[in-house]
Amino acid sequence: MTNTSEQNVAVVGLGYWGPNRLRALADIEGMNVTWICDRDEKQLAKLANRHPHTRATTDLDEALADDDLDAVVLATPVFTHHSLGSAALRAGKHVFVEKPLAGSSGEAIDLFSIAEECDRTLMCGHTFLYSPPVRRIKEILDAGELGDLYFISSSRTNLGPYRSDVSVLFDLGPHDFSMLIHWLGHTPETVSAVGRDVISEGVPDVAFVDLTFPDGMLAHAEMSWLAPGKLRRTVIVGSEKMLVYEDGTPEPVRIFDSGIEIGDTSNFGQYQLSYRSGDIVSLRVDSTEPITAELVEFRDAITDGIKPLSDRQMALDVIRTVEAAEASLADGGAVVNVPPAAREAVKGGSA
Amino acid sequence: MTNTSEQNVAVVGLGYWGPNRLRALADIEGMNVTWICDRDEKQLAKLANRHPHTRATTDLDEALADDDLDAVVLATPVFTHHSLGSAALRAGKHVFVEKPLAGSSGEAIDLFSIAEECDRTLMCGHTFLYSPPVRRIKEILDAGELGDLYFISSSRTNLGPYRSDVSVLFDLGPHDFSMLIHWLGHTPETVSAVGRDVISEGVPDVAFVDLTFPDGMLAHAEMSWLAPGKLRRTVIVGSEKMLVYEDGTPEPVRIFDSGIEIGDTSNFGQYQLSYRSGDIVSLRVDSTEPITAELVEFRDAITDGIKPLSDRQMALDVIRTVEAAEASLADGGAVVNVPPAAREAVKGGSA
Amino acid sequence: MTNTSEQNVAVVGLGYWGPNRLRALADIEGMNVTWICDRDEKQLAKLANRHPHTRATTDLDEALADDDLDAVVLATPVFTHHSLGSAALRAGKHVFVEKPLAGSSGEAIDLFSIAEECDRTLMCGHTFLYSPPVRRIKEILDAGELGDLYFISSSRTNLGPYRSDVSVLFDLGPHDFSMLIHWLGHTPETVSAVGRDVISEGVPDVAFVDLTFPDGMLAHAEMSWLAPGKLRRTVIVGSEKMLVYEDGTPEPVRIFDSGIEIGDTSNFGQYQLSYRSGDIVSLRVDSTEPITAELVEFRDAITDGIKPLSDRQMALDVIRTVEAAEASLADGGAVVNVPPAAREAVKGGSA
Amino acid sequence: MTNTSEQNVAVVGLGYWGPNRLRALADIEGMNVTWICDRDEKQLAKLANRHPHTRATTDLDEALADDDLDAVVLATPVFTHHSLGSAALRAGKHVFVEKPLAGSSGEAIDLFSIAEECDRTLMCGHTFLYSPPVRRIKEILDAGELGDLYFISSSRTNLGPYRSDVSVLFDLGPHDFSMLIHWLGHTPETVSAVGRDVISEGVPDVAFVDLTFPDGMLAHAEMSWLAPGKLRRTVIVGSEKMLVYEDGTPEPVRIFDSGIEIGDTSNFGQYQLSYRSGDIVSLRVDSTEPITAELVEFRDAITDGIKPLSDRQMALDVIRTVEAAEASLADGGAVVNVPPAAREAVKGGSA
Repeated sequence: MTNTSEQNVAVVGLGYWGPNRLRALADIEGMNVTWICDRDEKQLAKLANRHPHTRATTDLDEALADDDLDAVVLATPVFTHHSLGSAALRAGKHVFVEKPLAGSSGEAIDLFSIAEECDRTLMCGHTFLYSPPVRRIKEILDAGELGDLYFISSSRTNLGPYRSDVSVLFDLGPHDFSMLIHWLGHTPETVSAVGRDVISEGVPDVAFVDLTFPDGMLAHAEMSWLAPGKLRRTVIVGSEKMLVYEDGTPEPVRIFDSGIEIGDTSNFGQYQLSYRSGDIVSLRVDSTEPITAELVEFRDAITDGIKPLSDRQMALDVIRTVEAAEASLADGGAVVNVPPAAREAVKGGSA
Repeated sequence: MTNTSEQNVAVVGLGYWGPNRLRALADIEGMNVTWICDRDEKQLAKLANRHPHTRATTDLDEALADDDLDAVVLATPVFTHHSLGSAALRAGKHVFVEKPLAGSSGEAIDLFSIAEECDRTLMCGHTFLYSPPVRRIKEILDAGELGDLYFISSSRTNLGPYRSDVSVLFDLGPHDFSMLIHWLGHTPETVSAVGRDVISEGVPDVAFVDLTFPDGMLAHAEMSWLAPGKLRRTVIVGSEKMLVYEDGTPEPVRIFDSGIEIGDTSNFGQYQLSYRSGDIVSLRVDSTEPITAELVEFRDAITDGIKPLSDRQMALDVIRTVEAAEASLADGGAVVNVPPAAREAVKGGSA
Repeated sequence: MTNTSEQNVAVVGLGYWGPNRLRALADIEGMNVTWICDRDEKQLAKLANRHPHTRATTDLDEALADDDLDAVVLATPVFTHHSLGSAALRAGKHVFVEKPLAGSSGEAIDLFSIAEECDRTLMCGHTFLYSPPVRRIKEILDAGELGDLYFISSSRTNLGPYRSDVSVLFDLGPHDFSMLIHWLGHTPETVSAVGRDVISEGVPDVAFVDLTFPDGMLAHAEMSWLAPGKLRRTVIVGSEKMLVYEDGTPEPVRIFDSGIEIGDTSNFGQYQLSYRSGDIVSLRVDSTEPITAELVEFRDAITDGIKPLSDRQMALDVIRTVEAAEASLADGGAVVNVPPAAREAVKGGSA
Repeated sequence: MTNTSEQNVAVVGLGYWGPNRLRALADIEGMNVTWICDRDEKQLAKLANRHPHTRATTDLDEALADDDLDAVVLATPVFTHHSLGSAALRAGKHVFVEKPLAGSSGEAIDLFSIAEECDRTLMCGHTFLYSPPVRRIKEILDAGELGDLYFISSSRTNLGPYRSDVSVLFDLGPHDFSMLIHWLGHTPETVSAVGRDVISEGVPDVAFVDLTFPDGMLAHAEMSWLAPGKLRRTVIVGSEKMLVYEDGTPEPVRIFDSGIEIGDTSNFGQYQLSYRSGDIVSLRVDSTEPITAELVEFRDAITDGIKPLSDRQMALDVIRTVEAAEASLADGGAVVNVPPAAREAVKGGSA
């Protein structure tokens, strides 16, 4: 990539994720942050001080008016994604949006149309898809090492951080849902969810979600902003082996050569069971930074039209799963169907 | 208690729990094991060898015919509880039954009637109610130390042991359900459950259960015979503090002075949140043996008419909760109502 | 083995270990406990009640006078081992002694002579040698899987239990020292130890021990009765891999494919290092009971003259290592030589 | 503090610690990084790119010649500390040096003299003294909460990182030694150490160190660059309570209400012991950054003459303890005296 093809980027929203993206972009060849943008002048000044070579503004339009600006990284609240994203696309900028892509599947589909129309790259940051453990697990599953998958049970809990803009389903759900869809290669068929809104009325902060997939595969995801400590634990149970993924721990991926085999069951109540409980292997996993990896894919989508792992279909399927879970939760845990995979809805876009 | 009031006891069923009860009874004053009984002659011979002072038989009727026998401890498969329990009661023996009391609420109510009719003590072994951590947690909750309870999330998983006679809901559910009913002083209002029967068709071996209680209290219980390791973890989240109960670990009860407070929310999307994350206290818990403690209560119910903690109402409420969960699981996770507390159905019995 | 060759055994000393041995002997074919013996009448009565088929006495001589008694298991305080053990040997009984064999190497050698003279089996219970993890580690080391051994670091601490008869070096040291001698096939060349006697003057309750072995192999063992929790952790660092042994945990033996390789070091201060940090394998280990396994070897030594793993040489080498450690501790940590392996001193005995 | 009193700082050495100091300085009011310096041009260029407002040089003298430069942060190999530090002091700059202050106590004392002579602040970065857990433990010890201290046992191991310039004693020892001296308010009286140099001949990479303090207090420190995983664990055992400090874990400071009391010991071998094993409290600890906190103290020492926690006496006492440990290790573990506290040697300096 020659210097002339360097992409000039604006980072918009400097709360929690924006500064992380700023740091990551600093190390990516071919990406050059030329603008930072936030409505909070104090936060803007603080970041501007650390990044004196960028231009700082509280007015996104000022940045969008810069003809030398190529792309925007949007790390603002979810409810702004559609309006700011569409403005950036219409200004001719490529857009990377923190997950979830938008506040509804309708908004997401509209953003896709605008991106098509403007012939710009639009990518959503489902960061977990780029984390080394998740990638390694995908390889293990694809190789059939666990056998037939029986069920997946996940806990994603912590004491906060509260999101001011969305429910826990919209905040944490995309992590589990994007992983599940990625690993299984399917969207869920049905979703049911129960939960509570204990801190702020109308904003669920804890939810227990059940998802069904083809062939009886069952997934369960507990997500909560109210927990005594951080837990990021996913257990995958297959017919041959079991896998435990604990994100953020020194041994994130462990494979258990464990299972139960059942023999003749002709006599009533007389199982012939054998338990297998063999070695456990804790896998060495790369330490590449997912937030960097996905911005590299954003760059490659812009410059070379390469479709990223976190593509439009994923962005839409995740939102549709969240919407189904929210509908179920509002209906006391009723079983809600998820629309089939979003292949048609998003065709045509490189990303 | 004088020697003349010593209770002669038969232990029936020498699989997993029977030998444990045998050991526990050996140390209880006023209880004297005079019979052991099992249909498996080899297992019977093995135990007879270790307990040469007891009489051994493969025929329960032989023991029941012994006029000096006062009580029977039933550690046989669930589907035999009603027939063997009613035979023992009708033979004039007091009966202690391993949980669950019977295979259905109908059977349970019938056993209560027979016990009434024969004026004998009938008690079900919900052992967890006698475990020191569960008792300590009850005290903490009753003292209001956690504040208003928001939700309880529990995982009870292991690699087996498979039960040949019942589903995972009937095997593990009574542990969680009896604790919840005991702690909260309420039966659940509704139950929904999803699960799978991966090893043996028709016998669910993994289930995710949601329960609602009055005032919005939500409980979630994951139970599985298919897991890479043993997990017995219950998290109780209250408005003031949070508690984590990990059974069988060196620090079974830990209280977290953690929470989130919300201030003014008048501005849209502008929470004024404060996170509290203070000291954690790991409580010293007694090491008394629950299986001994509940047999002591069985003895006291026989000799002094003292109502045990694990009473008839509990036994019935637990079965009704299991039945509702099984109905929901069979109906794809539909929300099922649980009958209100069983107070009326069981009135009149000491135990 | 026919019934006529069954060994009649007396269990002497019913404090902590005696009852465990009683339980273990109950399941061993060819061993029949006919006597139990303790000076504490209350404890004796309690155990007699549980084992009504054995004869109980507070007077060891009464049991030794029984011509049908073949063997004695000695679970009494260390300072009684020599006198009671020699009395039993002289009475024509085979003798199994809980570790350490005696209170000094002189006493141990004297016991060997008496055993020779009386042509009786004398065996010391270094139970850890029979634990499945220790055996598995021996296989791994013998196969060279860890490469050259660099050092071994061990922590063996707990809150008590205090021994009334010996220092922490004499109580816990034999565990580490017997394992080290077994694994490495060598006695240590030198020992140094520092420690304190904080609870009871003159009885060290915490010690830090350094041991050197041939070829520079270094071992370190921390042992203490004063610790906030139980820790039984041994790290073995080799040139190829590292191994962590945590006794009593769900994953007792873990092998780390970790190491550091150094390349050209010709430039001052310019190491060319490469760190290797690969998969970790947690080994499945059998769950056989070591206290049973060593009593089986005691039986086989009696009946078939088979030399046990825990042989006389080990018993003496362990005591000599403890003596050297005590001498060092008394001398402020001075380096003390350990006599070379006890091969000569104990030759001739089957066990 | 007015802008005129802002200190212009050069960060010298951009390997591991330099960049961390750069980041920390960016957030400290009154400190302004105007120079970065490293002999590695590639590393210099990389950092220059991230900090475009600083001047970059491979030649320290160029920076020292800048009259506007007030202070130097030295993060270079230990063997350069004396020459670069003295050059900076003689150029009229205040100097902050990463630990250890110098490669020998002689060099350290010489640096003190030069600092006196030039009337400049000279401070050594014993960062752990500024970590919130270490500060909290100091408060707990000073309040006598643990009672009389019996012993302290510490493990500080990891797989690397190797230091190219010093032994593991010079690299990791200062952490443990500075904490011990800080907590206890005393230098050790004697030190003994054994170890090995397995990777690079002549450079010990594993050491087991015993230290004695007044009143019998004993400390043990295991330190190693060869370990399967990171361990930073210190256990402090007192007469009243015990404390476990595990740096870098979610619960770094835990206090155990555990102990053993001994009653009448008049009868030989008949202890009357009582074990106390009460609640465990995991303390909430602040999350302030120690590397920032100590640079703030460096600034305050320069501008206001305030003596820092990590003062000259500490710097010298730590080096003397390391030297004694190295002497012992070279002498096969011989007990080596440590010079008494360095009060006299360093008097007169503000820092």
